[in-house]
Amino acid sequence: MNIDMIRAAADRLDGHVRRTPMLSSPFLDEIAGRRVLVKAECLQHTGSFKFRGGWSAVSALTDAQRHAGVIAFSSGNHAQGVALAARMHGAPAVIIMPSNAPAVKIANTRALGAEVVLYDRATESREAIGDRLATDRGLTLIRPYDDPQVIAGQGTCGLEIAAQAHESGVTQADVLVCCGGGGLTSGVALALQAEAPGLRARPCEPEGFDDATRSLATGTIQRNARAEGSICDAIVTPQPGELTFPIMQALCGPGIAVSDEDCLRALALAFHRLRIVVEPGGAAALAAALFHPDAAQGDAVIAITTGGNVDPDLFADAIRRYPG
Amino acid sequence: MNIDMIRAAADRLDGHVRRTPMLSSPFLDEIAGRRVLVKAECLQHTGSFKFRGGWSAVSALTDAQRHAGVIAFSSGNHAQGVALAARMHGAPAVIIMPSNAPAVKIANTRALGAEVVLYDRATESREAIGDRLATDRGLTLIRPYDDPQVIAGQGTCGLEIAAQAHESGVTQADVLVCCGGGGLTSGVALALQAEAPGLRARPCEPEGFDDATRSLATGTIQRNARAEGSICDAIVTPQPGELTFPIMQALCGPGIAVSDEDCLRALALAFHRLRIVVEPGGAAALAAALFHPDAAQGDAVIAITTGGNVDPDLFADAIRRYPG
Repeated sequence: MNIDMIRAAADRLDGHVRRTPMLSSPFLDEIAGRRVLVKAECLQHTGSFKFRGGWSAVSALTDAQRHAGVIAFSSGNHAQGVALAARMHGAPAVIIMPSNAPAVKIANTRALGAEVVLYDRATESREAIGDRLATDRGLTLIRPYDDPQVIAGQGTCGLEIAAQAHESGVTQADVLVCCGGGGLTSGVALALQAEAPGLRARPCEPEGFDDATRSLATGTIQRNARAEGSICDAIVTPQPGELTFPIMQALCGPGIAVSDEDCLRALALAFHRLRIVVEPGGAAALAAALFHPDAAQGDAVIAITTGGNVDPDLFADAIRRYPG
Repeated sequence: MNIDMIRAAADRLDGHVRRTPMLSSPFLDEIAGRRVLVKAECLQHTGSFKFRGGWSAVSALTDAQRHAGVIAFSSGNHAQGVALAARMHGAPAVIIMPSNAPAVKIANTRALGAEVVLYDRATESREAIGDRLATDRGLTLIRPYDDPQVIAGQGTCGLEIAAQAHESGVTQADVLVCCGGGGLTSGVALALQAEAPGLRARPCEPEGFDDATRSLATGTIQRNARAEGSICDAIVTPQPGELTFPIMQALCGPGIAVSDEDCLRALALAFHRLRIVVEPGGAAALAAALFHPDAAQGDAVIAITTGGNVDPDLFADAIRRYPG
């Protein structure tokens, strides 16, 4: 895993990925007590950064692999990113989703051209189903974070941040990243090391699901006690990845844990002040920037809003509850 | 009024205005039956294109004029655009607002550094108050649309559209513009004529407040029968401007009128599919693109979402009522 792989992924993504804007508001600067730049990755195709990794992985396949197709396990943003990237490459995509996933997510993934295979979480093993399909059809598995080409794709977001921070006159800052398995965090960290060494990636996680934060603090991979129970479902994973953790350990600053309420307040402020739609897990980094100012250093902070696929009822409640 | 003024405004805005992204979604393409590109001007500073015109006007003043300050009449997006542009120039700004304007709009305008002067709509004349303040303090009035430098500023959005359409491979398309007094519509039309002659600007308005549409159809300026009664308050004006109408007449295609419900559905789809926050009046052009496909021609259509300063309750109701 190195910067050359990220640069090669950027070449493959060129003209297909959206260069998402860096947003700001004087109202957010005032809350944080420093300049806040928001990398609005929720505006990426399919509404999250996952399209980058999906495109990177599919575009790195051989013609024969692409022709056979890809497979992914996901009920969320990774599913949609892989599905659209595969369709744009003319590659079949199979997405394994739990049968109790929200109907709208299943419908959206199908509408993006993927074949959705449902499984019963209580009685079936998604890995067994996936292995059988992959073997029968010669499908290539695209993992959500522990895959070099996926990390390389997510790292292209870091290349853009390096350039946009430079355009904004910011050379020293913490770059706060919503962190699940660490694919985006490690990819961004590698890109910043090469392109903007004054910028330092830091993982942001929900309280109670701060496996990356604790792993960085202790120097060994730590697991979460629970698998469910945060509204930030998009960034809840059992533990940091085997590939991603060593990169984070070498390059990232300490992690920051935020409460669910902090995320909802950040979601509401992004609505009122930036006019973007962010999901709770995609707001964790902005929450850290706004409500944990002592955790960061310097005159400016950069936060990535990583996704915007949010339940309308949850969103409606949050923007009513928390005014601008 | 000519393209050179728009290019000069673009030079003055360079590095200060946000180059807003051109967004898209396969789900929107399917609804419209053609490719839909959305110029997300709701992501501009202060949440609307009005910042462009405000900056253009303030930056065109002499040092002495800027030192004395500016004045504007507005309870909405023009107020915030002028207030922030003036503050960034170190110029005092007085905004005259009705005393029954929403408290949050008054607070936001003050927070952007403007002096807000309230008047009673029933008993006072805002023009008389404005004239007295302008004379006493030597303030320069910045009109919301019938001002050459304001039109030039809004026209810079058209320069970006010309470049972004080219990048997207679109050379022939209607460019749908939410239209109030016609500052944005006329500025964009001038920019497109010079930079992308295959793109044609068309005003979009609420049903019952389609003064520009009727004026273009009859060839003479028509007024609206009513001054209030649309949820698209940001684009309700009595009639097209004296400066803007001749430009629209020379360069624009026919206007399109959309219902309030169309705008709310478009607002909800922009939430679900583009993850941007659009106000009802800012969604009129997208509503025309999605729900009046027969009104446009060609393989692609471009719609500007002009503003995102929306009441949270209205937004919450719309996204719950209209699923993706």
